[in-house]
Amino acid sequence: MITLYTAATPNGWKASVALEEMQLPYEVHTVDLRGGEQHSEAFRSLNPNGRIPVIVDNERAHTVFESGAIMLYLAEKTGLFLPCEPQPRSQVLQWLMFQMGGVGPMMGQANVFYRYLDQTIPVAIERYQKEVRRLFEVLDTHLGEHEYLAGDYSIADMANWCWVRTYKWSGVSIDGLEHLRRWKNSIEARPAARRGVEVPHKIVPEEIAKAGKRLI
Amino acid sequence: MITLYTAATPNGWKASVALEEMQLPYEVHTVDLRGGEQHSEAFRSLNPNGRIPVIVDNERAHTVFESGAIMLYLAEKTGLFLPCEPQPRSQVLQWLMFQMGGVGPMMGQANVFYRYLDQTIPVAIERYQKEVRRLFEVLDTHLGEHEYLAGDYSIADMANWCWVRTYKWSGVSIDGLEHLRRWKNSIEARPAARRGVEVPHKIVPEEIAKAGKRLI
Repeated sequence: MITLYTAATPNGWKASVALEEMQLPYEVHTVDLRGGEQHSEAFRSLNPNGRIPVIVDNERAHTVFESGAIMLYLAEKTGLFLPCEPQPRSQVLQWLMFQMGGVGPMMGQANVFYRYLDQTIPVAIERYQKEVRRLFEVLDTHLGEHEYLAGDYSIADMANWCWVRTYKWSGVSIDGLEHLRRWKNSIEARPAARRGVEVPHKIVPEEIAKAGKRLI
Repeated sequence: MITLYTAATPNGWKASVALEEMQLPYEVHTVDLRGGEQHSEAFRSLNPNGRIPVIVDNERAHTVFESGAIMLYLAEKTGLFLPCEPQPRSQVLQWLMFQMGGVGPMMGQANVFYRYLDQTIPVAIERYQKEVRRLFEVLDTHLGEHEYLAGDYSIADMANWCWVRTYKWSGVSIDGLEHLRRWKNSIEARPAARRGVEVPHKIVPEEIAKAGKRLI
């Protein structure tokens, strides 16, 4: 059994979508981000960086933090959604890293300046929203020639989709990016992916509005 | 033979340090970032995201972009600096992802607001410099109990070191972080690591000053 420490954020969903897609049994511990549980000594013994998600693989008494490392760990544990042969494997890892170093951090910063900061700093909002749109265009162009990001549906698709689907929250449009939209819709149609983004609970628009600054 | 497309930046060094540490033969193509070569059609056929570094493994006619994916590809190709057993392997991947999603993007944003933008936005400079210092403290605490980030010296150390060593450029202090400093110095003492950060050429302070906005 795996224990998942998580909250309703794109990085949290990366872990729960992977667990659902791989049909691994897991129990959920919801981390109270508003109450600052991620900074507690107990939580920092799991992740010294004080961030969700974290998994504990109880069979092996092994803890994994960083959403990208969790996806890789689970893919290697199950042999699913990440090929073994060097070249197709490397393609999945490239698009996973594109999310880890690009889409995730840039959407995160767009959210900070667009949603959370009290002060409005137009140059920062514009910087991050433009960069996110540029990254979306890179995905869209690639998806114009490929059904999924790297061969068959993989952890790279799951990782990018968990962020891309929140584009409205970042204030970025996907108008005109029809390949990206087609890909997004095709993942949304997967029951396991849909279950994954309802962990630890389903997000409804009113809740997003209430959550305000602390959502992500 | 491997061809490395790179420039003198922390992400570029991640690739050249790994190649040097793994003693892989490679040839260097310096990408002219000031001239915008990374946006050219030729370069975008290697990396649709228009970013260095990129490697081409000519033996396999295989191209890899994203510095984290390059490190993983090379480690798996050689069997070096990344264990095979699930738990120690996962620890390396966690600290590699910590650099990919944390140290790299946050130092990158600190550099943008501290060095490159014409407009001075104190709230943004402070935000990123504080976050970088916090990440350094996470590394320092961990390194107080571990010689390297994850077992033996690994690609996780190389990746984090390539960024941490540029702390002055981001305007962040490492005063009081003696474990981090000890680790930094111990990697600096490795001839292969030192050679790696002189690719495509040695950076001298005067050059940094001249390079201004376009360095990274």
